[in-house]
Amino acid sequence: MGKLLIVGTVAFDAIETPFGKTDKILGGAGTYIGLSASHFGVESGLISVVGGDFPEEYLQMLRDKNVDTSGVEMIKEGKTFFWSGKYDYNLDTRDTLVTDLNVLADFNPVVSENFTDCDFLMLGNLHPAVQMSVIKQIPKRPKLVVLDTMNFWMDNTMDELLEVIGKVDVITINDEEARQLSGEYSLVKAAQKIHKMGPEYVVIKKGENGALLFHDSEIFFAPALPLEEIFDPTGAGDTFAGGFIGYLASTHDISFDNMKRAVIYGSNLASFCVERFGTERMLNLEQKEIQKRLKQFKQLTQFEIELTQ
Amino acid sequence: MGKLLIVGTVAFDAIETPFGKTDKILGGAGTYIGLSASHFGVESGLISVVGGDFPEEYLQMLRDKNVDTSGVEMIKEGKTFFWSGKYDYNLDTRDTLVTDLNVLADFNPVVSENFTDCDFLMLGNLHPAVQMSVIKQIPKRPKLVVLDTMNFWMDNTMDELLEVIGKVDVITINDEEARQLSGEYSLVKAAQKIHKMGPEYVVIKKGENGALLFHDSEIFFAPALPLEEIFDPTGAGDTFAGGFIGYLASTHDISFDNMKRAVIYGSNLASFCVERFGTERMLNLEQKEIQKRLKQFKQLTQFEIELTQ
Repeated sequence: MGKLLIVGTVAFDAIETPFGKTDKILGGAGTYIGLSASHFGVESGLISVVGGDFPEEYLQMLRDKNVDTSGVEMIKEGKTFFWSGKYDYNLDTRDTLVTDLNVLADFNPVVSENFTDCDFLMLGNLHPAVQMSVIKQIPKRPKLVVLDTMNFWMDNTMDELLEVIGKVDVITINDEEARQLSGEYSLVKAAQKIHKMGPEYVVIKKGENGALLFHDSEIFFAPALPLEEIFDPTGAGDTFAGGFIGYLASTHDISFDNMKRAVIYGSNLASFCVERFGTERMLNLEQKEIQKRLKQFKQLTQFEIELTQ
Repeated sequence: MGKLLIVGTVAFDAIETPFGKTDKILGGAGTYIGLSASHFGVESGLISVVGGDFPEEYLQMLRDKNVDTSGVEMIKEGKTFFWSGKYDYNLDTRDTLVTDLNVLADFNPVVSENFTDCDFLMLGNLHPAVQMSVIKQIPKRPKLVVLDTMNFWMDNTMDELLEVIGKVDVITINDEEARQLSGEYSLVKAAQKIHKMGPEYVVIKKGENGALLFHDSEIFFAPALPLEEIFDPTGAGDTFAGGFIGYLASTHDISFDNMKRAVIYGSNLASFCVERFGTERMLNLEQKEIQKRLKQFKQLTQFEIELTQ
């Protein structure tokens, strides 16, 4: 069983979808990653920052899921990062209405002594300089470093981002971001170019169209589970990443075959995340539900064909 | 080994993609379906219509692939159906530039005696009245009837289309068409509603995002193979349908497990179709290439996970 360190935002989100609207609710990449990874019983710690307006009960909720929150700094005089977005009618695009960085603007992550020996490091979507600072605080290279990022950093801090990309084993980005980062339209070619920037493994997330895992010339595909209801896609990518690294940390096995299982688990966890607003479904998710859905993933994808040559 | 009857267009296509442009080349749903199904060594016949301008050598090409073309009527004084389209830069949408129905406008399909006892019937995308006329000419219901159609018929001839849909076992449409036909955004709900219209099996094609097969509460997903180069998507959906029904006809097995294999074969054949303009790749495709790609499909999708509950 590996020790997992997560760096990522803890935030308030206000979300509007065609199915409803929320006030400020618990959100943030670090929150979703932590909640998702918690289902694998791994020892995990979260590094983040919140303001004095952040309710202690939310941190307790994370601790109840065995996420160590001692690395979540609280800046009493500051306000918690706030994001607000509105999804279009088919949930595949969204407009950001508000981004108040607040305490995130001066976030200076500190890796506590208890996690400087982590085996698995998940760098949630953040300023690349923050991600790099965490990497530098860990003296012995972890067994696996996973980076999530987004087009915003490609547009604004590409040099710093490329430096971080050069230091990680796995990058998770969506299809448009893979195209932007590589300048290649074909995702196969995009992954080849991104390999050359550093990461041995490239995960391309395609939302309701699943996720691709690339390693050298090998490709594995995990579909998204077709659902009757999709309520709110917020956090699905982070939940995927949390399931991915949580499973790898719990099995302490980074073979390609195990990575296949990890993307299936990532897709599995993400399929729950989207069924309710925000973190609601993730906070009330039981092991037997995950196992039941795993069976559905097998039925959805597994077939028997004899190769004749 | 079943006997397969195909009804579908045989046409001239002029295609423009970001990678090039063709003059009038061989095209048509019937052509692609026939070429794709031919790889399974099944006895197949094609019902269609062409004009006096249609080269005998194209028909010979189909016969060389063991497609019986005696049902392709030639109207000497008429001209062959002509379609011209232009794809956008990422190949996922296209504009129709020209649709000259020509001899197709008065197409009156005649099922020859040799195929009135067919076991498998593939109704390619055509006016629903033409599709219905073929169904009515076959006295003993085939083992399996597959219908392909498109939004154009939903917009213009919905009543006739619904009548045909009520008489088939399998319908293949794309995701947008499934939503239009059912009025449901969720593809799971869309398939449930379409089941109630008649077809026991619903195949939803999502282009580069694969295809879903629905039957009662069961769902199976076949991804598209990630490719380095996609040259021309024309005919991919028809090639998919031809691979699907060709495999089923060759195995004479319509169990759900065999249908899973059939959608994998459909996706396999379609992955070749898009690699060159028009039918070029399909005319020069060998069995060992299909088998090699089948292995890639297995690597892409198959995994081992132990279920704990």
